[in-house]
Amino acid sequence: MSNITIEQMRFWSPEVRELEPYVPGEQPKIQNLLKLNTNENPYPPSPKVEAAVQAVLANQADALRLYPDPDATALKQAIAKQQNVDITQVFVGNGSDEVLAHIFKAFFIQKEPILYPDITYSFYPVYSQFFGIHTQQIPLNENFEIDVVDYKQVNGGVIITNPNAPTSIALGLDQIEQVLQANPNRVVVIDEAYVDFGAETAVQLVDKYENLVVCQTTSKSRSLAGLRVGFAIAQSHLIAALEAVKNSFNSYPIDRFAIAAAVASFEDQAYFEAQCEKVIDSREKLISELTVLGFQVLPSKANFIFATHPKYDAAQLTQQLREQGILVRYFNKPRINQFLRITIGTDEQNKRLVDTLKTHIL
Amino acid sequence: MSNITIEQMRFWSPEVRELEPYVPGEQPKIQNLLKLNTNENPYPPSPKVEAAVQAVLANQADALRLYPDPDATALKQAIAKQQNVDITQVFVGNGSDEVLAHIFKAFFIQKEPILYPDITYSFYPVYSQFFGIHTQQIPLNENFEIDVVDYKQVNGGVIITNPNAPTSIALGLDQIEQVLQANPNRVVVIDEAYVDFGAETAVQLVDKYENLVVCQTTSKSRSLAGLRVGFAIAQSHLIAALEAVKNSFNSYPIDRFAIAAAVASFEDQAYFEAQCEKVIDSREKLISELTVLGFQVLPSKANFIFATHPKYDAAQLTQQLREQGILVRYFNKPRINQFLRITIGTDEQNKRLVDTLKTHIL
Repeated sequence: MSNITIEQMRFWSPEVRELEPYVPGEQPKIQNLLKLNTNENPYPPSPKVEAAVQAVLANQADALRLYPDPDATALKQAIAKQQNVDITQVFVGNGSDEVLAHIFKAFFIQKEPILYPDITYSFYPVYSQFFGIHTQQIPLNENFEIDVVDYKQVNGGVIITNPNAPTSIALGLDQIEQVLQANPNRVVVIDEAYVDFGAETAVQLVDKYENLVVCQTTSKSRSLAGLRVGFAIAQSHLIAALEAVKNSFNSYPIDRFAIAAAVASFEDQAYFEAQCEKVIDSREKLISELTVLGFQVLPSKANFIFATHPKYDAAQLTQQLREQGILVRYFNKPRINQFLRITIGTDEQNKRLVDTLKTHIL
Repeated sequence: MSNITIEQMRFWSPEVRELEPYVPGEQPKIQNLLKLNTNENPYPPSPKVEAAVQAVLANQADALRLYPDPDATALKQAIAKQQNVDITQVFVGNGSDEVLAHIFKAFFIQKEPILYPDITYSFYPVYSQFFGIHTQQIPLNENFEIDVVDYKQVNGGVIITNPNAPTSIALGLDQIEQVLQANPNRVVVIDEAYVDFGAETAVQLVDKYENLVVCQTTSKSRSLAGLRVGFAIAQSHLIAALEAVKNSFNSYPIDRFAIAAAVASFEDQAYFEAQCEKVIDSREKLISELTVLGFQVLPSKANFIFATHPKYDAAQLTQQLREQGILVRYFNKPRINQFLRITIGTDEQNKRLVDTLKTHIL
């Protein structure tokens, strides 16, 4: 934005002049690059996904010229069935980023500040600024864990990533219930982008707590990052708020291919579970190997790990890996600027990472 | 929302409790239904679009598991080339509805009210409420035309649909220039969802006016409603505001299939022009035939017409057509509650409409 003059800025809404947008991980197009920086799944989605896209092309002459179902009913049905909830308890959006944006608008514009950890998904402060939401960041403890006692103070809502990112550490459902019980008049959002890699989902608490919203995505565990489908599960009175917001913003956010492909994914539970198991197994192996190399790795329930090495600077390691064609994510932020966030690849990819560290760097 | 109790409403952001969402035209799944109610194109998109989707599936093992390019650079390049502008002058979003939402946030949150016609796209008041934007609706004249003199008063911005919807009437560029010149410190948005069916595009004015934003969609003239791709053209300092907003809301709004398909559409200019010509020809024929039946039809530059019959009630006609399997759009609003908005179909579809009116209704 450096080329924009003060005079040209007069056209902008005043509040937009102050925005500090989110910066996603890089998506470069370099040959033989090993991308361990944006927590994508190393495996393709269920083969039924490609078949579903082919079916859209083959069977529906009207697949492209007609608007999609604005309610994405087929997708909500597939999610409801897989998650064992009622269809009125399902909201869908253009990636969980859009679902989260609608959640912030629907529930968090309150007089009191919302609460979230100081170290968590860095889009939360961005949404908050976008909607003019007050925030209070709660420091993780010295082990980078969330202490749920901290979420019992007056607030306008709570959002917790579970497992947390980029720390990878998960809370148990008993701890989440403490937060829910402490905030009977405020919405508590559990952002479960990474839950399928070993943590417990709070979806099973939805019928019990009228203030719970659980957000998930198909981008990680279902290998559909390229398609943009996220969803929320909550009691229907909260889903209604999300629908009111969505229908005041964009009537048809999910296209016909995305609906069909995501439906196919939710209908292939066996493939989904098998791929998640493979990622979990690879994670445990990688943690062992990095520990042997002297890394300290936080206990991960995600498809990534958060690792630090007492003898090597994290920013420098990131740069050295990059020179060897391996991208990891580095956050130049207080408390975590000596950590690398490393996405779990296939065993072969993880071996390339470990070998590169051994041979070229450490 | 009737099932939600006051007590449950305590979870909602107070401002969200007041929202009145947009209601899109119906998308029912009825056999042999003739859908002339949501201004879709009766023809499929370029065959190159399907080929592009197949290429994504066939050539990219990583098509689905990896995030799309957050900037959709390939799509911006294709649009820039087709529209003869620089890539820095292009913004893309998840349908023009999302592009418009970002436009309202980026430019229209000002102290003064934005101006738009009393009869126009009914999403504008919805966006305005969503973002807390003050509005002033300017009545169309007695011929349902926009009088540009009315847009020379103090305002926080102007948005004009051209051709207007649901009236179908177009403004000339000389009139649009009057609005641009009268508002040198405010953004003037020309929403050109229907421009390709016979009106003049304001894109050619972008280099001349630093306050102009032109919004278009692939949903109508490019037969890609099922895919959700809209775009805006403006000088780069205005595009930067839209990017700041977009990147504070959703990093990756356009999926890999949509990017590839829309690129293919923009690269097939000959097909695009031929299909638009067919719709225009069919429109002129349909207007003649409806006029013979006693309808009064406003002069259309769109892929729909706005028609009234002095002897028949419009709501009743809508219902009678529905009983015969033909959907048209009816707006129960002041000034236009005796009009039908009828999407232009193929000649065969239009004949079914005319025959049905003759045989069963009039």
